[in-house]
Amino acid sequence: MNDKDILKKVDHTLLERTATWEDIKVIIDDAISYGTASVCIPPNFVGRAVDYAAGRMSICTVIGFPNGYSTTASKIFETVDAIENGASEVDCVINVCDVKAGDWDSVRAELNALREASAGRILKIIIECCLLTDDEKIKLCKLVTESGADFIKTSTGFSTGGATLDDVKLLRQNVGSSVKVKAAGGISSLEDAEKFIEAGADRLGTSRIVKILKSTSD
Amino acid sequence: MNDKDILKKVDHTLLERTATWEDIKVIIDDAISYGTASVCIPPNFVGRAVDYAAGRMSICTVIGFPNGYSTTASKIFETVDAIENGASEVDCVINVCDVKAGDWDSVRAELNALREASAGRILKIIIECCLLTDDEKIKLCKLVTESGADFIKTSTGFSTGGATLDDVKLLRQNVGSSVKVKAAGGISSLEDAEKFIEAGADRLGTSRIVKILKSTSD
Repeated sequence: MNDKDILKKVDHTLLERTATWEDIKVIIDDAISYGTASVCIPPNFVGRAVDYAAGRMSICTVIGFPNGYSTTASKIFETVDAIENGASEVDCVINVCDVKAGDWDSVRAELNALREASAGRILKIIIECCLLTDDEKIKLCKLVTESGADFIKTSTGFSTGGATLDDVKLLRQNVGSSVKVKAAGGISSLEDAEKFIEAGADRLGTSRIVKILKSTSD
Repeated sequence: MNDKDILKKVDHTLLERTATWEDIKVIIDDAISYGTASVCIPPNFVGRAVDYAAGRMSICTVIGFPNGYSTTASKIFETVDAIENGASEVDCVINVCDVKAGDWDSVRAELNALREASAGRILKIIIECCLLTDDEKIKLCKLVTESGADFIKTSTGFSTGGATLDDVKLLRQNVGSSVKVKAAGGISSLEDAEKFIEAGADRLGTSRIVKILKSTSD
């Protein structure tokens, strides 16, 4: 697999709490130069990023991030706000509390509400694998598929662990054919990226792939 | 200082991503038994907690938490949503990105909007000290004071560090007399609690003080 094919699957990501607009502009410039799928940035920068990218790059942001325990009403507001600001992709964190309580009706209702609020845009559902049992992951694959979301995503990168190959394979085996898999958190080399893609990942959330290619081209 | 005086200053806190309603009920029961200032819990549980506590305990929740880089519009929505659900205290994270960019006008505007949205409730502003220089902390003390917020709070407990005695002293020295100081993150013993109070903290965000007293009374 050549670098270009890998880059097409990358959401070039900067979600540091201390990121400035200058940092975000570099991310957007690099994403355009290297041909990534999108840039994934904090909600607060979406409006400026959309103006700056001017149609040359998809802008992705995060919702209910990273802890996932805001109210459904807040997540819906954030989703609509992000879309009004021009985001074309939204990565939303599930309510892990509801999963742990076995309250699948609430999980389902929130997923359906998020799908409705993000109609016409790419919706990725972050399930935060590192906090879940395999049974919980499998159940979520079913609910995410039923909701009509576009992607299931392994991790926020802000919890106890990132993407694993085993999780990507598990998700790939258990979501429907309409749902793609995004691996995120800790993907740090081109070799890693290729392994995750071979395991079934359609997108990779990472800042490092572009950085590696940039440093080797210097 | 006796245990009771310390407990009166504690926001008994459970902000784990995997908390269930059963866990939250224990927190509320313990807070009532031990006489803490409030319980600090995820937004998603506020409505149920208010009903369950039935006026016997103040319910505090978190806004823009923990990364602080959601839009001001989203933080305002979350604040109003939490208050409509019955929260009497809201702990809101500043936009550290704006601080790092030196965009103090945006920081000021957000603080003022949060104050307006939370009128009549206790507003605490989390500045996430571990990510800031002393100069930034001092500047924030000034803006938080001007905004009319009730508290300045050291930390989310979800970043690179928690409360330090030096930070509590620095904040105490630099906020106006109308602003109280809340220390949060890593306060793990009664001795710690007393030191933070002596350094100038009016509130302590911690789950451990009640747990310690509970285990010694078993």
